[in-house]
Amino acid sequence: MSIDTSIERILDAALEELAEGGARRTTMNQIADAAGLGVATVYRRFPRKAQLVEAVLVREAQRVIEAVDAAIGRAQTVEEQSAAGFTTFAHAVADRPFLVRLMRGDGELDGEAVRPGELADRVMVLVRDYIAHFVRDLQAEGRYLGVDADVVAEIQARLALSLVLAPDGRIPMHDDAATREFATKYLVPLLGVE
Amino acid sequence: MSIDTSIERILDAALEELAEGGARRTTMNQIADAAGLGVATVYRRFPRKAQLVEAVLVREAQRVIEAVDAAIGRAQTVEEQSAAGFTTFAHAVADRPFLVRLMRGDGELDGEAVRPGELADRVMVLVRDYIAHFVRDLQAEGRYLGVDADVVAEIQARLALSLVLAPDGRIPMHDDAATREFATKYLVPLLGVE
Repeated sequence: MSIDTSIERILDAALEELAEGGARRTTMNQIADAAGLGVATVYRRFPRKAQLVEAVLVREAQRVIEAVDAAIGRAQTVEEQSAAGFTTFAHAVADRPFLVRLMRGDGELDGEAVRPGELADRVMVLVRDYIAHFVRDLQAEGRYLGVDADVVAEIQARLALSLVLAPDGRIPMHDDAATREFATKYLVPLLGVE
Repeated sequence: MSIDTSIERILDAALEELAEGGARRTTMNQIADAAGLGVATVYRRFPRKAQLVEAVLVREAQRVIEAVDAAIGRAQTVEEQSAAGFTTFAHAVADRPFLVRLMRGDGELDGEAVRPGELADRVMVLVRDYIAHFVRDLQAEGRYLGVDADVVAEIQARLALSLVLAPDGRIPMHDDAATREFATKYLVPLLGVE
């Protein structure tokens, strides 16, 4: 088996086990068993459980980004792209309860490995830079020049992250059409009047 | 000493000790010593440390609200009130690092007592309802009728909370004038055009 194949198998097994048992309780032995590999192989690829947890997180984050990219690619106008991007992000994260629990810090990691607040901060920066890039592309075409791309992006990133970490509230997060309507009415205008 | 006086003394001492040592490491004995009271008295008022931590938090939250109320009371226009309220809230919370650490879940409580994610959720609801009340008062005067008061309030509450929990970013949080300018340019327009 190639190194890449075994890493993918370890990550698949780790995601499954971590999602079920949480990061604290899941052992490297359990993950090795689930992957059908010896625990020595797992330790060779990931010397510490924290590294494996982080690798799982990074891969999940990439998957969320791919889903958002695809949704934006299918939309036509800026308004549709914004609304589709926000809605897809919200649902792609919500579908990954392990990611949500880790960022919320619901006793999963207990100080070990990634600290929940720090993880959420890093995700915020990733999302902000992704949105800022999108806004700058529009500004390069002469649109929405009245706003600071980083600031607008950070407002949206912080709001999106808050909503996936704690979806209960008056902003509709459990119904695709309602989430999209919210994004269109309240988030798109943050870009400013053209 | 009256019950009220001893409770105030315990809360004062607890705030000091908790801010310094964190909720996990601080003992009821330390708090009793700092308050100049016997530990039996402390336990009579607060049978469990978690209850004492919660009482400290509630009192700090009330103080933040009083500061925001005072700032809003001094402002004249809606725009000034929004900007002053947001800026005062941000700084009143940032001045209470113990509150911030507890909500961030930086290993302070370790599953015991208040869970960080739940605490942040409760604060969000408090802040949202406070802002929604403010927006509804304006709507009762026929202003800003185009928005859902709860939704606008929740956007602002989630953003404010995110910014106090993780102030580093492209939104200026360390300089009063800049924070106020940000609020005026990006948050006040969320209320919609009159």
